[in-house]
Amino acid sequence: MSVVEVPAGSPFGRENLPYGVFSVAGGDPRVGVRLGDTVVDLSVLLGATGDDAVFAAASLNPFLAQGPARWAQVRERVTALVGGDLPDAALHPVRDVALHLPFEVADYVDFYASEHHASNLGRLFRPDAEPLMPNWKHLPVGYHGRAGTVVVSGTDVVRPCGQRKAPDEAAPTYGPSRRLDIEAELGFVVGVGSPLGGRIGVDEFDQHVFGAVLVNDWSARDIQAWEYVPLGPHLGKSFATSVSPWVVPLAALQAARVPLPGQDPPPLEYLRGSEDWGLDVDLVVEWNGEQVARPPYKEMYWSPAQMLAHLTVNGASARTGDLFASGTISGPERHQRGAFIELTWGGREPVTVKGEERTFLLDGDEVTISATASGPDGTRIGFGEVTGRITPAR
Amino acid sequence: MSVVEVPAGSPFGRENLPYGVFSVAGGDPRVGVRLGDTVVDLSVLLGATGDDAVFAAASLNPFLAQGPARWAQVRERVTALVGGDLPDAALHPVRDVALHLPFEVADYVDFYASEHHASNLGRLFRPDAEPLMPNWKHLPVGYHGRAGTVVVSGTDVVRPCGQRKAPDEAAPTYGPSRRLDIEAELGFVVGVGSPLGGRIGVDEFDQHVFGAVLVNDWSARDIQAWEYVPLGPHLGKSFATSVSPWVVPLAALQAARVPLPGQDPPPLEYLRGSEDWGLDVDLVVEWNGEQVARPPYKEMYWSPAQMLAHLTVNGASARTGDLFASGTISGPERHQRGAFIELTWGGREPVTVKGEERTFLLDGDEVTISATASGPDGTRIGFGEVTGRITPAR
Repeated sequence: MSVVEVPAGSPFGRENLPYGVFSVAGGDPRVGVRLGDTVVDLSVLLGATGDDAVFAAASLNPFLAQGPARWAQVRERVTALVGGDLPDAALHPVRDVALHLPFEVADYVDFYASEHHASNLGRLFRPDAEPLMPNWKHLPVGYHGRAGTVVVSGTDVVRPCGQRKAPDEAAPTYGPSRRLDIEAELGFVVGVGSPLGGRIGVDEFDQHVFGAVLVNDWSARDIQAWEYVPLGPHLGKSFATSVSPWVVPLAALQAARVPLPGQDPPPLEYLRGSEDWGLDVDLVVEWNGEQVARPPYKEMYWSPAQMLAHLTVNGASARTGDLFASGTISGPERHQRGAFIELTWGGREPVTVKGEERTFLLDGDEVTISATASGPDGTRIGFGEVTGRITPAR
Repeated sequence: MSVVEVPAGSPFGRENLPYGVFSVAGGDPRVGVRLGDTVVDLSVLLGATGDDAVFAAASLNPFLAQGPARWAQVRERVTALVGGDLPDAALHPVRDVALHLPFEVADYVDFYASEHHASNLGRLFRPDAEPLMPNWKHLPVGYHGRAGTVVVSGTDVVRPCGQRKAPDEAAPTYGPSRRLDIEAELGFVVGVGSPLGGRIGVDEFDQHVFGAVLVNDWSARDIQAWEYVPLGPHLGKSFATSVSPWVVPLAALQAARVPLPGQDPPPLEYLRGSEDWGLDVDLVVEWNGEQVARPPYKEMYWSPAQMLAHLTVNGASARTGDLFASGTISGPERHQRGAFIELTWGGREPVTVKGEERTFLLDGDEVTISATASGPDGTRIGFGEVTGRITPAR
């Protein structure tokens, strides 16, 4: 038996305890929580029989499907245990484990919930029109992405090929994207779904959503710009979406809940809730190890509770493993922009990365997004990181 | 042992043999093929051990994943057997079985491959602009739909609620869709996927796609019109997409293959194939039992082989169970339009249904889409039907 030492100031203290799926050399994937720099194997700590059999699964989905009462009970058990002696067989240094995609993604929806991001992209993609569309302040605009290409942090991203046409070219050409970008986002993971014809009310958010991950919604801007009218982004996004390996439960984000910045006009009734689901989460974007942006999640116009209420208000069912993401997180300041197309203003205002002027991603570049949220008693709640390296087009 | 009598002229003769998942009262779902008005239980006919264990599954996915050599071998065995005496335990009148969603849908992509449909919708949604966007003849435009709300024929469709704003209204209102519509489509089912970073060439279509189904992509035009700029359709489509219960294998569609109507300008190299994958399939749309349209699939501009090559050209992986659909099938004539918004020209030119002038769907309406394709030796290959009834908004 051992006591896990949590380094001072670690964002993975007992108040966090995010869930992931890990394996050690030669072993099967199973469910663990992170405590400091240690992964605690729940299938050993809590056992793997009865309801606890879900901890021996290769994804969080069976546990997610057990619902909020069970999530609370497990968190309470784990919180009580991790302060004391733990069985050595349950403990693995995080550097020694492989971290897997933590859940099987059912449907993936990406929103567009930052007013600063939507305004910036409007100016860049449609310079002759109002930056925000007339619908933008009435509903959280979103669209379905490709669930099958959601990958875990650390997965290489092959530069996508496709059709690109610059405004001054007569016809499109085929080739590797020349404007490969990132989008720094938060994603929300549905634990308990809803039936076809039903809906999830805006105040039922935490009865359905288990927790949150970091998302990098890689984007090929040249492919996107050519293809996206009128049916929206497709190949410019579908080649890869990376998520962090740790799912931070909503229970760990209670101290981070803040009011939204304000909504004018007031949204329609089905989008009005009585609870605050703005979140004080600070993201950091590093490009080849150099910090280039600090997007503030608390600036987001639409809350994740509103996103989920909206996406089910038409009777669409939700399923365990559904992932919905916020869209790029951008604040009002330049250094708060969560996409390089905004940060470099369409490539016209380069940023300096390791002494070089840079606009879009080059082969070999690595982008790492990390985040922490306000925790109880001045602590920080870590999301860990989502990272990926660009490999050359094939 | 019995010989199955196939009614003269049945589109479910030995040259078809589509696959589905069925159950009889009290029994588990398993895999069958349709022969005339009989469902032949493959788990009885061929057994359910070894490779044949896939026939005792509740979805076609395990069989689909076995790949094209296995698909051909099974079809050969079944074709040889169904001409002779069959074990009575394998035979069920189709009226006595429940038909289930035939496959688990991985990702769902909907294309927009009919020039007539895209032009008509352009004129209706954007009356002041060119009907076809500049990209339309360069790439098969498509977007991701909601996989979790793909339902089998016969499932009721609850009228969706959402935000609607007519052009003459100052602000959106919330309520049931007033412009509920259909889209008559063919869908293609991926059996063998492709890895992340790979792609499926336009001439590799039949090594990856198993077969085709009928699709009704129910559409709330008022919700869609308000939400779809700039990220594409979302809640106007995501409430339900119905598919037929029988998957017609590509092997049964060989006699239906025809050249495309013609592509000008010639598409980029990655969309050029050496094989014809236009398909001579005739659809029939019935509204409350009255035939209102006959969309011809052979008029489609883009082939399904081009659709799959396009959707993976950026390195997006494909999975067993991926469904991609053609988009509404419309021909050049009014009675060939596969959506009511086109057929009634935005509701301004009603059609007569059972003696009443009708535009969009009313509660209680039932729409049934059926289709047959050219088969060998003058036979017809039936797709069966996809049907659904509108129930009132909740």
